[in-house]
Amino acid sequence: MTEAKQTSGGGSLLIAWQLSNKRVLIVGGGEVASQRIESILVTGATILLVSPAEGIGSRTKELVSKYKESGKIVHIRRKFSETEDLENMDMVLTALDDNELSEKIVHMCRERRIPVNAADIPHLCDFYFGAQIRDGPLQIMISTNGNGPRMAALIRTRLQKGLTGLEGRAIEKVGLLRERLKERAPGVGGIEGRQRMKWMKELCDIWEMEDLAMLEEPTMEFLLNEGWSKDRKVLSPMETMPILRTKKQTVIRHVVTEGGQSTITAFILGAVCAGLFFTYRGR
Amino acid sequence: MTEAKQTSGGGSLLIAWQLSNKRVLIVGGGEVASQRIESILVTGATILLVSPAEGIGSRTKELVSKYKESGKIVHIRRKFSETEDLENMDMVLTALDDNELSEKIVHMCRERRIPVNAADIPHLCDFYFGAQIRDGPLQIMISTNGNGPRMAALIRTRLQKGLTGLEGRAIEKVGLLRERLKERAPGVGGIEGRQRMKWMKELCDIWEMEDLAMLEEPTMEFLLNEGWSKDRKVLSPMETMPILRTKKQTVIRHVVTEGGQSTITAFILGAVCAGLFFTYRGR
Repeated sequence: MTEAKQTSGGGSLLIAWQLSNKRVLIVGGGEVASQRIESILVTGATILLVSPAEGIGSRTKELVSKYKESGKIVHIRRKFSETEDLENMDMVLTALDDNELSEKIVHMCRERRIPVNAADIPHLCDFYFGAQIRDGPLQIMISTNGNGPRMAALIRTRLQKGLTGLEGRAIEKVGLLRERLKERAPGVGGIEGRQRMKWMKELCDIWEMEDLAMLEEPTMEFLLNEGWSKDRKVLSPMETMPILRTKKQTVIRHVVTEGGQSTITAFILGAVCAGLFFTYRGR
Repeated sequence: MTEAKQTSGGGSLLIAWQLSNKRVLIVGGGEVASQRIESILVTGATILLVSPAEGIGSRTKELVSKYKESGKIVHIRRKFSETEDLENMDMVLTALDDNELSEKIVHMCRERRIPVNAADIPHLCDFYFGAQIRDGPLQIMISTNGNGPRMAALIRTRLQKGLTGLEGRAIEKVGLLRERLKERAPGVGGIEGRQRMKWMKELCDIWEMEDLAMLEEPTMEFLLNEGWSKDRKVLSPMETMPILRTKKQTVIRHVVTEGGQSTITAFILGAVCAGLFFTYRGR
């Protein structure tokens, strides 16, 4: 993980960089390189991996053999070559033990205005990586601005406990519903655009994450026909009940209420203690 | 908030972009521009804001008058001028109603290889913004990959509930301790570097976030003198107790245990219910 020393006032601009159909050069093949490869693969970019065979770690090897046929990763078994490797690159990541070579690559990227990250040399980086959580379309990044990658990992664990695991699915469903709505109200901007945004916002406010996660095609149709198309109304989950599949709801409710178990246990424990007290006093 | 339609498999590369001492051009002065200004201000970049006076919203106006003296924001009261505004820029953000002008600016940025975001025109963006949490050096970004900014906001609220509010302080303290440790063991890489990383990792594992947040200078010295310098040992919070300030700990413990109140309430409620039951039965 790349680290940096910064003043406490200094922050980063956290952004979601788009790499679909772009080309990323990764120089080096060890443990860090494999982490970089995994981060890049989810973006839809093509990876050019430059590293001598002896520099390839086990995880990198696995990833290369898994993705080489699809053309997602092209592995060139040699050291970095300045004349050809930077050509048409949209991003460059170095994962090298050789700091001198890393520095050289960074300066060449600067000249060509290619965004570059040099692992473990923060002052040479245009951007840093951070701890991440991914659940389908949901991506969360935790940055400590160079004050320790371990802390970022601890906070990731803490944040993960606050998620039910249904958020990714809920986001997917909301995305689908928004697509359906746009088919009915295709206007960009204007009154219809604003009504559409308001309707979506209200729906997300009224519906719980867990209800959104179980939104199926028929319910979406019902919401649009009986809600949106009639007076732009937002129906509650209860109002769509006739078509909800009760079985599914039960399963999800079970997941959701797990967090309440300690409260229930405490209630029972309290009752038992008082019961024992009264039983004892009654003797 | 910039949105984008993407396939469910498509993700972004979430990164912490570095803008300290860089120059960012913001074109437009409305509500979105003010959000952009706030995001950029934390990074230590200088902002060139180009917008006619009539396009400036109230929040933007506030920010301009607050930061113009320090030179952090320079406001040029006119429309975008292609001949001069892009010169020496490290990043460009458009926040315009005029999509045609936005598109023109984006293409000019592409030619110059300047990273660019055009608000509300996702297919033209090199990167997107997302919902954010900030607590000192801690920055968290939530991206739904274009499946609805409202969902990102809901997840932000959910994540915020999982944080105690002490994380930022804990990260600062760990950063400081790491600096102190580096003064004693300045080697990059090698055995000492690895020992240092191991020691910091262990400390973060053994110490609770809340203990880390209350780490003061004398405790750090104690940890380094009695722990690191003697056999690279990691002392527990208990082992540093002689010099801990008990009062502070009490305050923090109070904050931390707030989450347990519902459990305590449930216990009492359980006891009261059972009490009533026995009282009633006893009649």
